[in-house]
Amino acid sequence: MESDAGLLAPGRAGSAAEAATGDGAFLRALLDAEAALTRAQAAVGLAPAEAARAVTAAAGDTARFDARDLALRARAGGNPVIPLVADLTAAVPEEYGPYVHRGATSQDILDTAMMLVASRTLDLTLADLSRTETALARLATAHRDTVMPGRTLTQHAVPTTFGLKAAGWRWLVLDARDRLRAVREGLPAQLGGAAGTLAAFATYAAHDAESSPTGRADPFPTRRDESSPAHHADLFPTGRAESTPTRCGQASRMAGRVGTTPWDQLPGIYADELALTEPPLPWHTLRTPLADLTATLTFTAVALGKIASDVLTLTRTEIAEITEGTGGASSAMPHKANPVRATLIAAAARRAPGLAATLYGCVAAEDERPAGAWHAEWEPLRDLLRLVGGAAHDAVTLTEGLQVHPATMRAHLDLTHGLIVSERLSAELAPRIGRSRAKALLTDAARRATSEGRPLADILAAEPDLAELGLDLNELTDPTAYTGSAGTLTDRALERS
Amino acid sequence: MESDAGLLAPGRAGSAAEAATGDGAFLRALLDAEAALTRAQAAVGLAPAEAARAVTAAAGDTARFDARDLALRARAGGNPVIPLVADLTAAVPEEYGPYVHRGATSQDILDTAMMLVASRTLDLTLADLSRTETALARLATAHRDTVMPGRTLTQHAVPTTFGLKAAGWRWLVLDARDRLRAVREGLPAQLGGAAGTLAAFATYAAHDAESSPTGRADPFPTRRDESSPAHHADLFPTGRAESTPTRCGQASRMAGRVGTTPWDQLPGIYADELALTEPPLPWHTLRTPLADLTATLTFTAVALGKIASDVLTLTRTEIAEITEGTGGASSAMPHKANPVRATLIAAAARRAPGLAATLYGCVAAEDERPAGAWHAEWEPLRDLLRLVGGAAHDAVTLTEGLQVHPATMRAHLDLTHGLIVSERLSAELAPRIGRSRAKALLTDAARRATSEGRPLADILAAEPDLAELGLDLNELTDPTAYTGSAGTLTDRALERS
Amino acid sequence: MESDAGLLAPGRAGSAAEAATGDGAFLRALLDAEAALTRAQAAVGLAPAEAARAVTAAAGDTARFDARDLALRARAGGNPVIPLVADLTAAVPEEYGPYVHRGATSQDILDTAMMLVASRTLDLTLADLSRTETALARLATAHRDTVMPGRTLTQHAVPTTFGLKAAGWRWLVLDARDRLRAVREGLPAQLGGAAGTLAAFATYAAHDAESSPTGRADPFPTRRDESSPAHHADLFPTGRAESTPTRCGQASRMAGRVGTTPWDQLPGIYADELALTEPPLPWHTLRTPLADLTATLTFTAVALGKIASDVLTLTRTEIAEITEGTGGASSAMPHKANPVRATLIAAAARRAPGLAATLYGCVAAEDERPAGAWHAEWEPLRDLLRLVGGAAHDAVTLTEGLQVHPATMRAHLDLTHGLIVSERLSAELAPRIGRSRAKALLTDAARRATSEGRPLADILAAEPDLAELGLDLNELTDPTAYTGSAGTLTDRALERS
Amino acid sequence: MESDAGLLAPGRAGSAAEAATGDGAFLRALLDAEAALTRAQAAVGLAPAEAARAVTAAAGDTARFDARDLALRARAGGNPVIPLVADLTAAVPEEYGPYVHRGATSQDILDTAMMLVASRTLDLTLADLSRTETALARLATAHRDTVMPGRTLTQHAVPTTFGLKAAGWRWLVLDARDRLRAVREGLPAQLGGAAGTLAAFATYAAHDAESSPTGRADPFPTRRDESSPAHHADLFPTGRAESTPTRCGQASRMAGRVGTTPWDQLPGIYADELALTEPPLPWHTLRTPLADLTATLTFTAVALGKIASDVLTLTRTEIAEITEGTGGASSAMPHKANPVRATLIAAAARRAPGLAATLYGCVAAEDERPAGAWHAEWEPLRDLLRLVGGAAHDAVTLTEGLQVHPATMRAHLDLTHGLIVSERLSAELAPRIGRSRAKALLTDAARRATSEGRPLADILAAEPDLAELGLDLNELTDPTAYTGSAGTLTDRALERS
Repeated sequence: MESDAGLLAPGRAGSAAEAATGDGAFLRALLDAEAALTRAQAAVGLAPAEAARAVTAAAGDTARFDARDLALRARAGGNPVIPLVADLTAAVPEEYGPYVHRGATSQDILDTAMMLVASRTLDLTLADLSRTETALARLATAHRDTVMPGRTLTQHAVPTTFGLKAAGWRWLVLDARDRLRAVREGLPAQLGGAAGTLAAFATYAAHDAESSPTGRADPFPTRRDESSPAHHADLFPTGRAESTPTRCGQASRMAGRVGTTPWDQLPGIYADELALTEPPLPWHTLRTPLADLTATLTFTAVALGKIASDVLTLTRTEIAEITEGTGGASSAMPHKANPVRATLIAAAARRAPGLAATLYGCVAAEDERPAGAWHAEWEPLRDLLRLVGGAAHDAVTLTEGLQVHPATMRAHLDLTHGLIVSERLSAELAPRIGRSRAKALLTDAARRATSEGRPLADILAAEPDLAELGLDLNELTDPTAYTGSAGTLTDRALERS
Repeated sequence: MESDAGLLAPGRAGSAAEAATGDGAFLRALLDAEAALTRAQAAVGLAPAEAARAVTAAAGDTARFDARDLALRARAGGNPVIPLVADLTAAVPEEYGPYVHRGATSQDILDTAMMLVASRTLDLTLADLSRTETALARLATAHRDTVMPGRTLTQHAVPTTFGLKAAGWRWLVLDARDRLRAVREGLPAQLGGAAGTLAAFATYAAHDAESSPTGRADPFPTRRDESSPAHHADLFPTGRAESTPTRCGQASRMAGRVGTTPWDQLPGIYADELALTEPPLPWHTLRTPLADLTATLTFTAVALGKIASDVLTLTRTEIAEITEGTGGASSAMPHKANPVRATLIAAAARRAPGLAATLYGCVAAEDERPAGAWHAEWEPLRDLLRLVGGAAHDAVTLTEGLQVHPATMRAHLDLTHGLIVSERLSAELAPRIGRSRAKALLTDAARRATSEGRPLADILAAEPDLAELGLDLNELTDPTAYTGSAGTLTDRALERS
Repeated sequence: MESDAGLLAPGRAGSAAEAATGDGAFLRALLDAEAALTRAQAAVGLAPAEAARAVTAAAGDTARFDARDLALRARAGGNPVIPLVADLTAAVPEEYGPYVHRGATSQDILDTAMMLVASRTLDLTLADLSRTETALARLATAHRDTVMPGRTLTQHAVPTTFGLKAAGWRWLVLDARDRLRAVREGLPAQLGGAAGTLAAFATYAAHDAESSPTGRADPFPTRRDESSPAHHADLFPTGRAESTPTRCGQASRMAGRVGTTPWDQLPGIYADELALTEPPLPWHTLRTPLADLTATLTFTAVALGKIASDVLTLTRTEIAEITEGTGGASSAMPHKANPVRATLIAAAARRAPGLAATLYGCVAAEDERPAGAWHAEWEPLRDLLRLVGGAAHDAVTLTEGLQVHPATMRAHLDLTHGLIVSERLSAELAPRIGRSRAKALLTDAARRATSEGRPLADILAAEPDLAELGLDLNELTDPTAYTGSAGTLTDRALERS
Repeated sequence: MESDAGLLAPGRAGSAAEAATGDGAFLRALLDAEAALTRAQAAVGLAPAEAARAVTAAAGDTARFDARDLALRARAGGNPVIPLVADLTAAVPEEYGPYVHRGATSQDILDTAMMLVASRTLDLTLADLSRTETALARLATAHRDTVMPGRTLTQHAVPTTFGLKAAGWRWLVLDARDRLRAVREGLPAQLGGAAGTLAAFATYAAHDAESSPTGRADPFPTRRDESSPAHHADLFPTGRAESTPTRCGQASRMAGRVGTTPWDQLPGIYADELALTEPPLPWHTLRTPLADLTATLTFTAVALGKIASDVLTLTRTEIAEITEGTGGASSAMPHKANPVRATLIAAAARRAPGLAATLYGCVAAEDERPAGAWHAEWEPLRDLLRLVGGAAHDAVTLTEGLQVHPATMRAHLDLTHGLIVSERLSAELAPRIGRSRAKALLTDAARRATSEGRPLADILAAEPDLAELGLDLNELTDPTAYTGSAGTLTDRALERS
């Protein structure tokens, strides 16, 4: 078996994102792009309606195309669109063959397919992020006042709450969601022709005009009558793949551009056919869309990675303040419940930045189409989409099933014998007995609390210097009474939707 | 000399961005942050106005602080804020020492300083991008109809125009500008205290309240009378560094939050003092601001890298369609005029993605402050700011001085003996004589044109099959007549401002 | 179709390296590792010979195992070994089930399989590098004296030869080969048990000893008689997969370790079974082998990338000093012959460094097995193996088919009207007329040669200052006479084998 | 202050590696390279001995050169060698000016300087790695039998020993040392001239020959008489910088190459002057030396990162099995002792892979000198050298001061109530009562031990099924009795030197 079935990819095997990014999904998207192109040409009078119907029908039958065979034949020219066009042409009646891929370049189709795959995968990912943030909101609300050690540089610092931690995680998820959503909304179709000038379309249009019955056809379809091919809505009542809902905006689009040529309208209509946005310029080597996808996907991976990182810390055997709902088993060690979901998310977070580096590097591409920088994008972008999709899916399971152990958290607050509130004591004592005396006294008390294993409150109670101050040492050393604005911050964070 | 003077960094040596990101600038920003913190505390009644004045004055005198000495002492605790606080405390009258850094953690100051440095550097970079896009707009306008070979996979494809190329470059610059500008507008201050709960501020506030003359001070400064420390505008008529203009929004900010506590208001006022935005949550380990900076800086580097990549190609000795205005000299070879600006931009573009990978990796940071992931951000972020600032500066010189050679471009269009318009001929002939016959005929003619070195038009003119069609072969093989929508696309792209 | 068939991977689709790294190959390697483990245990008396036979037979029948099903079930525990062990256990007679995977941990099997896949793929890659260096040696020999422009910073510098260039390419290939070969020779098996202490093996051994007929079995199989399970050679006369030739070194190995325990011998015998090396320590989190693989694979990718980069430059339409033997076609532009092999190699070179960054990052892994850093290695390492294997394969085609055009190279030497030898003229004139006068004279002459388009020799011939020197200007400005040590260096480089 | 004083770099500020890699050190190395080049030319008769003396003297006076000024002037041509040559020429008597940098290209000097800086820094790093491995050997020996929990996927797995862990850390350090040492031994000088053909040297040699008193000098210095410039040892009795000890191998080198030309001998003698190796070919774009440095430095960073990662885990407040000897203080929290050394090493480990990606990418460089790929190497390579040098320095402090707490380790072995030896119990019970029954029984017992907080031994003791087996449950559940081969492995690992 040359193909990959996900054996090395437990982070995404079986996920919807995997299915949405597999070779099958790419083949589907490539065919969708080709069919949309012919339909769009028909809509502006550059192809007969019958050709559009025929190409759409042929492209709709994915079973006629063999991804492996295409992959092998792609070696010759360096991309899979070349053999796909041959097969698609062979699959339509001979007279419509010339309308397959007419005027386009391989990159038009491959880039568009990439955007289609991205948009379909992002929809799944966004749904999973939505479930994740809901679960985290629930956790933050439930544990608004669950006090736990705040940790910095691996050491207990001062108390915080699990609510604030969960609210922070959610904040990152919302940041990721907002960025992904914005990018997803703007994903453009690609259409530029051989070198991004749309030149062939104009030539075909001119020719079509010449050869029209009246000797010179009207090249402005916006002024065509009702029987013209522009009546797109009638042409394809059912021929469109479910996965590519059309925003029926062609009519208004054309109306709004009276005076422009048919081929100028083509990119917009083509984009509409695929529910992508119209590119302001062909972007064969203006890779902002790729860079934006890279940025947001990578951010999502590492944002989820932050959550995973915390979960992995807090589930350590010695800490055990939280546990995954469904720990992974170990065949040899029946007692083990590994934090598998967090582990796989963490693995995705480790991989995304390296892929991002590659993809960013591809932006600096020479000419109208680069020799390598384009080809180097395909698998890394797919990998990013998959990793993030898989991680988002795991994040749902992780956050919905997370078990929180407030008693353990509470117990840990005492691990340092009260030193976790030493900052508070500094703040209280310094104004009263002077900063340097306070510091000396506390440093000594801290040392003794640690070495003698006694509560700081007890040690301080025996300090004659403090006795006269009449402080309530139990109150002042109560870690649950030193959470600052944690509650307020949690509330505020939860207001964001 | 242990310090770096830019000897290995010709891409940024002497640039304004370099000065804005040097250790001196960081020291300035760290001090600005400390002073702003004390001023903000004074504004909400957590410090005497005199303390704020004293700290601001001491912090304003950068010469009192020794970056190298601080660097060496930073090793002990792992960050430069710890020794800086000691030095700043020593620099103010003893009674105001306790108000230095009060309630804050090192990361509050360092993160804030990073944002200050970023905002100051981005202002410079944005100005350079603005000049660059203006220069590119001029080039695109001037060369709207300058025809040149479009190149794909290193080979001539079909004609394009230099105008469209320059317009595309400008489009990328505008994409970078818009993203940088949006990020720059949102750069947040950092304030969270030891573990992000703002706990110490509340403690100090409570203490201050207790120890006030009336036994129990009003903790809500928005309701204090005119003589209270909240009259911030009076307090610091001159004490603020020029580089940190205050948005005088404190009064309205407080007014709008009646009922909140002084320490809840602190982050907002602190941010205002520094012309940064108020963070919705402490972001010690919610690194969205860092990730956004990383994404936009890296994109800017590689977007400029795309321009450099094209310039490097087009200035090759054999191509020479453009030249840099001021080529770099070679001591040994007097004839050489190296494309140095493009070279240095290209070098920056190569470096940014690796730095981005590191910075993205740091987002997945454990706990309330990570052991390493935070420390690993400092130099890479500074490097990114510098590289991009330097590259933007070079881009100004490059684009303002770029010399375009239309005659050379025109001559190159004939290098393939007319084959550069073979796509057009396919499009013209296929409908007339059938796709496969057209293809066979053109493939043969292309072969002969290449091997015989004769114009394609001549060879086709001798084809009996074509004679009867009455085509104007000179017109059809004129590369300047096959630029498609290049002009329209250029016009449209130039409309963007 | 969820699986990948290589549709986005023309750089490796159909290559032997692809087949050697697919999920099928990994499944094969995982099963080989399990079978070898049981055989090794049999060899040291920790399992009955029949168990080893049964496991080997079951593992040999790959068709019984379903990679997709395993992939899906791998999600629960986070790795594919857990379900594989279940399936393999079910595939052997019940009484031998306990000997499947006995004492091992998932990572023992997965790491070992990774090394097996690496060694098998590297063999293919090394063979392709060997063909590549042979082809390059032929090119370097044939073109030892083919003069061409040396280019620096995109500009003609001084002449060089294609022979030296090809010899340099070959040098890099040999550097890659030597490094890959060294790494391949040292690839270790992995065996450590649950936390790298081999503890379970000792327990099983102790138990086996207790339960032996004599009450207390001899735990030292090296002293067992002829009928003992140690007679490994008899046990598996045919049961071993062809792809895992056994170095029959067990006997001597054991002999050399009299006094060590069976379980101490286990790793070595296990490694021998798989033709891997014995690990000095379990390396679950001592990832030197991974780092070495990463380094050499990445170097190979970018070394081939250097060749590709030069080929892409030299095949540009304007340069055309070389062409790929079989250029990739373009459907729309019949004249185009794209340098597809170089393009795909260049794409691989762009991707390898990002993968390397991820893999290097995984070395810094916590504990006895990390939560994420291990899981993040699997796909990137496979990707690296594939990319490099595919690139090496393309390099064979590229270098064996490369067409060199000496006449074009010769013609280009005159493009700068003789300025390509200005360094020589400086060297000749400076000692005669003084450095500064020489420089001024040459700079002026260079300017005129360029602007007037006349040969530098003609311009210099008219210089009265030079007339009296009696120089042979034609000789001095002959680019083919200024190749320095190019020939000697080429010869020397070709001596390396 | 535009220059950097290390304010953001506590990981290397003040270290010897910092001093060895600063701009001052690079300036020194550039000057060393220039002086060595003139000396080498004198040695083969291409320059007067007086010129070599003069250049060596001028280059030795670093104070005459201003790094900042050079940095600023480097912008014009894109590298610092161009202005440095001007300044060095101005610093020697006019008649020797022509012998400065004669025949070389900027890259010859800069690459050579990079190798010099690398070799000097690696010597420091190797010394620190040596101290680190010694400290680790001591720890491994002292704690050979100190039992602690082995941890996988954050959970207790089975027991291991701290000795084995320390021995593993040491193994990585030795792996790093061996790789660094091998690379350091092979660091080559660079010498190729304008395009790597050494052409100018030959020209100067020819000219020198012509202009010699006898009309035609003997170009083979190995046959020159005693008074010739080849008597190198006499020429520079004191003129050589201490930091560049000469391997006095010129005589034998020349003797061994009778018949070769002076300029062919030049690279070897030049390399000897600098204690670097002779490059077999100019490697301007054959970047194996850079790639090898990158690989080994990056590996060293992440290998030390593995140690840091474990230290950070084991010093967590809840785990506290080890502590750094000198923890970093926190101003606000007197009790905190942060693991600062491990933190800074971990930060270095995070940064190295991104730098490696950049450097690897630069190997795929076009032509005889690339436009960008060379320039992009300088700072990243310096950064890598610094990060690794700083990390190695921190590793000495970390490992020499590390405090180990065996009692805490022992206590943690009981945290899972005996489940940490569940693997052993499986291994013991399965053969006795059957695998599935053993698994069911243990799973149930594990569940109860956890929920009831009782030792597994007690729960099992109450199992009627087990009573009859007469097992010594205390022995079987003793974690210190289940360390497998940890001791043997530690011993074996410590044998490596």
